[in-house]
Amino acid sequence: MTLLTLDQVNALDAGAFAAAFAAVYEHSPWVAGQAAALRPFASVTAMAATFAGIVAAAGDDAKLALLMAHPDLAGRAAVRGDLTAHSRLEQASAGLDSLTAEEMAAFTRANADYRLRFGFPFILAVKHWGKAHILAAFRGRLDNSPAAERATALAEVDKIAFSRLLALIEPAPGGRLTTHVLDTARGRPAAGLGIELARLEGGAETVVRQDVTNADGRLDQPLLAGAEMAVGLWRLTFSAGEYFLASGQTLTAPAFLDLVPIRFHIDNPEQHYHVPLLVTPWSYSTYRGS
Amino acid sequence: MTLLTLDQVNALDAGAFAAAFAAVYEHSPWVAGQAAALRPFASVTAMAATFAGIVAAAGDDAKLALLMAHPDLAGRAAVRGDLTAHSRLEQASAGLDSLTAEEMAAFTRANADYRLRFGFPFILAVKHWGKAHILAAFRGRLDNSPAAERATALAEVDKIAFSRLLALIEPAPGGRLTTHVLDTARGRPAAGLGIELARLEGGAETVVRQDVTNADGRLDQPLLAGAEMAVGLWRLTFSAGEYFLASGQTLTAPAFLDLVPIRFHIDNPEQHYHVPLLVTPWSYSTYRGS
Amino acid sequence: MTLLTLDQVNALDAGAFAAAFAAVYEHSPWVAGQAAALRPFASVTAMAATFAGIVAAAGDDAKLALLMAHPDLAGRAAVRGDLTAHSRLEQASAGLDSLTAEEMAAFTRANADYRLRFGFPFILAVKHWGKAHILAAFRGRLDNSPAAERATALAEVDKIAFSRLLALIEPAPGGRLTTHVLDTARGRPAAGLGIELARLEGGAETVVRQDVTNADGRLDQPLLAGAEMAVGLWRLTFSAGEYFLASGQTLTAPAFLDLVPIRFHIDNPEQHYHVPLLVTPWSYSTYRGS
Amino acid sequence: MTLLTLDQVNALDAGAFAAAFAAVYEHSPWVAGQAAALRPFASVTAMAATFAGIVAAAGDDAKLALLMAHPDLAGRAAVRGDLTAHSRLEQASAGLDSLTAEEMAAFTRANADYRLRFGFPFILAVKHWGKAHILAAFRGRLDNSPAAERATALAEVDKIAFSRLLALIEPAPGGRLTTHVLDTARGRPAAGLGIELARLEGGAETVVRQDVTNADGRLDQPLLAGAEMAVGLWRLTFSAGEYFLASGQTLTAPAFLDLVPIRFHIDNPEQHYHVPLLVTPWSYSTYRGS
Repeated sequence: MTLLTLDQVNALDAGAFAAAFAAVYEHSPWVAGQAAALRPFASVTAMAATFAGIVAAAGDDAKLALLMAHPDLAGRAAVRGDLTAHSRLEQASAGLDSLTAEEMAAFTRANADYRLRFGFPFILAVKHWGKAHILAAFRGRLDNSPAAERATALAEVDKIAFSRLLALIEPAPGGRLTTHVLDTARGRPAAGLGIELARLEGGAETVVRQDVTNADGRLDQPLLAGAEMAVGLWRLTFSAGEYFLASGQTLTAPAFLDLVPIRFHIDNPEQHYHVPLLVTPWSYSTYRGS
Repeated sequence: MTLLTLDQVNALDAGAFAAAFAAVYEHSPWVAGQAAALRPFASVTAMAATFAGIVAAAGDDAKLALLMAHPDLAGRAAVRGDLTAHSRLEQASAGLDSLTAEEMAAFTRANADYRLRFGFPFILAVKHWGKAHILAAFRGRLDNSPAAERATALAEVDKIAFSRLLALIEPAPGGRLTTHVLDTARGRPAAGLGIELARLEGGAETVVRQDVTNADGRLDQPLLAGAEMAVGLWRLTFSAGEYFLASGQTLTAPAFLDLVPIRFHIDNPEQHYHVPLLVTPWSYSTYRGS
Repeated sequence: MTLLTLDQVNALDAGAFAAAFAAVYEHSPWVAGQAAALRPFASVTAMAATFAGIVAAAGDDAKLALLMAHPDLAGRAAVRGDLTAHSRLEQASAGLDSLTAEEMAAFTRANADYRLRFGFPFILAVKHWGKAHILAAFRGRLDNSPAAERATALAEVDKIAFSRLLALIEPAPGGRLTTHVLDTARGRPAAGLGIELARLEGGAETVVRQDVTNADGRLDQPLLAGAEMAVGLWRLTFSAGEYFLASGQTLTAPAFLDLVPIRFHIDNPEQHYHVPLLVTPWSYSTYRGS
Repeated sequence: MTLLTLDQVNALDAGAFAAAFAAVYEHSPWVAGQAAALRPFASVTAMAATFAGIVAAAGDDAKLALLMAHPDLAGRAAVRGDLTAHSRLEQASAGLDSLTAEEMAAFTRANADYRLRFGFPFILAVKHWGKAHILAAFRGRLDNSPAAERATALAEVDKIAFSRLLALIEPAPGGRLTTHVLDTARGRPAAGLGIELARLEGGAETVVRQDVTNADGRLDQPLLAGAEMAVGLWRLTFSAGEYFLASGQTLTAPAFLDLVPIRFHIDNPEQHYHVPLLVTPWSYSTYRGS
């Protein structure tokens, strides 16, 4: 599907805008309806924040109605084929459309426990998770206080909305993925170290970039920029073993470390993801920087 | 091949011992010959250290002769099929028996440069490396001073000898692999976190253990112990995403981290490898502990 | 003041127990009153958890009354000299009894803003903080939702109660402070590294222990154990520079690192605090382990 | 003493240059003599590298003579008052001019052991170390092979020379000290965190800068730049406790971390020192970046 540009979004007449984004909040077109007047949006991130702000400013009854408008995960509506188009795709991407009888029983039980405790359906932005993750999230949230859990559920609704907006609108440019490798055994940038970036999707791996660090331990270009910043799972692999051999560091045979893989998700294609590696022949660390 | 036990090694008569380990140092049976009288050995590690001590105590001429006794990597002896059995297997495991013409040219050039500078063949314990690693090691060592490089070459010879001893003798018990997961965002052990251990060998992956951390963030049993401690490449995979969801931590959708893989080599099956993970939803580190 | 032992606490008749701990929850003797029947307690930690559980199980009105029973920090009651003995000491230890006019104005404003938003007084376990910390905490909590903030305030009340119990009862044995130093540049325990432990209190520093790591990078004895585990501020100082020099690692002149100080609080003397150091000549990390 | 500028150094006639830097290598004016023709130098770092290159290219006899030209640390020449001006100051700054009888005995023994093993005096760039460091360095180097130790000794001579050049010439601009604070519990820059920089010298501490991180977790200006980059010991102190309170993170009372001090040396005022902090309420790490 062709994505709208932000310019197009900002230029829509109010009715067309409300229609285009009516389904972003489940069965709750009023959110998009109110957002029309709050344009222009400089980014999908800003647009999603505006939508979320409208929800946050709504009354408790409207919030509860919004939560209640969501279907159970792997619940009756799903079984009946009664989901919204968005929800069907989201649940399918988490594998919820192909549960074993045992798994279905586990979800039915979890949904029931949750509803009994909180009075509204369990909501989770499931698109990039599997069944085990979702059951873990059930466990993690059942002990929350009712007030904390309502806040958590609304935050999930906002994440789902952001994800739905990203399915409709081309992200603002500016997002990028960069890295930096420090040799913390020697206190210097790791120069000449090979890096491979792969996209992991549906069990398949696609190498999208191979590069070598410069004298500052960085790459001359971002690993990803602009439209390349796809939401989802990525893997950076650092050729630490070759680097250590080329730098003459003392190693065992075989060395403790060779290829260092780092798997991470990009959730917001408009942001800067800086994923550095601090490495010695015996240790490493990484973090989301910016 | 059935491995000797350390008890058997310690009980051999001196001549049989010398014969059994004559090939451990390339074309240099005198090392094993002298080692016979230094038994008993409590471990292969101790035995290798004794052999290395004999070499270290030898004169400069004997050391140089030992270095000179080694074949070039992917060199003429290899091409002629003129390698010792040990060397042939070691070079083959690094893929040196199947080089393209271009790769062969690169090795020939590197061997020549190295010999010209240092006067003896390039020696590297190659068994767990590939071609790119070996060429990286050439680069890393060409700038060494002659004295430093001679020391480095002898250290590689000792590593090769240790590897050859491990191919003949059953390791002493006591080696083991353990882990520990700390949730450094919350300052507590990561309890209930799934861990998978896989053996990576020849492009294939074999899952050998799946377990879940206890209340202290550890496993009740070592991941590997005793005879399971195979030299080579392993991968631990930590189910951080499920853990974070179950612990109710605030995440993006998708979360930055989900599965955290750590690839590492075991080089000495008689040692304790402690490979912990310190993790937050946004960062992690690991190191070889003990 | 002589502390009660847990045995004594467990042996008190119910009335004496209720009287002894009536002031643990501010103006709320009912908490101790209900706790008497839930003895024996194996530790102050367990006793505090029981008290907190009684509060958690109380109705919303009782919880709100408990919050309302607290005085403002640096508020009118403090100025009038109208605080409970516990509160007076706690506020004084944070320096709230000696504010400048400007500081007093800042606290008055912050208290008013907070009460206006949440309807109950700002509560914080202040005993080990200074004025700037407390004003930072005001800022950090003003944006909370009312429900989240009520939960936070109750959690602070529980922390204050734990602190008051520790002022009355001798902790259970078992608490201890340990460390471990890993040389992550060389992948081995840092042996022979000097460590100093100092108590920091009221601007003064008292060195309480000096020791040197053993072959495993640990100390043969805990740094602190049992009654030595005083709540408050401590500093470990690791003599990394001497260690690196003695280990022959390549350093600049002067080296990047020499003494590595780590300041930390002990909040619970019944727990195990493991405070390790992972260090190279160019980097280090530490964490609360257990 | 007024420092020369690099422009002045580059403009000196050859004889004046040779005279000005004759003492940079101990009793070895030939080094400066040869360096005159290799100007201009863009930095003291480049100038020192040129001097070191001249030494590296000299014959083995000249190198040994250079090593032999150095006095023992706390040795007979020092006792007799027979040191060069440079050496006297350097040894005094390490406290070697005020040893107890016992310490003097330890140094005399260490010097003798070292000379016996290697045939030349023990050389160490001592200016920023104390006695214990120097004795640690003796221990660390006695086990080196003669060839490795000769290389180490020459490297120390080069470090001493760099330090002597810095005592004579104004550094090139461009050196600076920066920091960056990441909140790795929440995956974002730590904004609004207070930082203090102090100079530690001769037992005294002088606070030279206090600042607060911006939205990116950095400071708007370098902590030090240009002429402020004094070689020696510095301490950064990060107000992590206030930051955590202001960010509403869950803490114990008292929190595990409050002020986080990082002590480090600057050895080269012409370089960029990036000293970041990655911090959670329960852990932190730092490293020399660039």
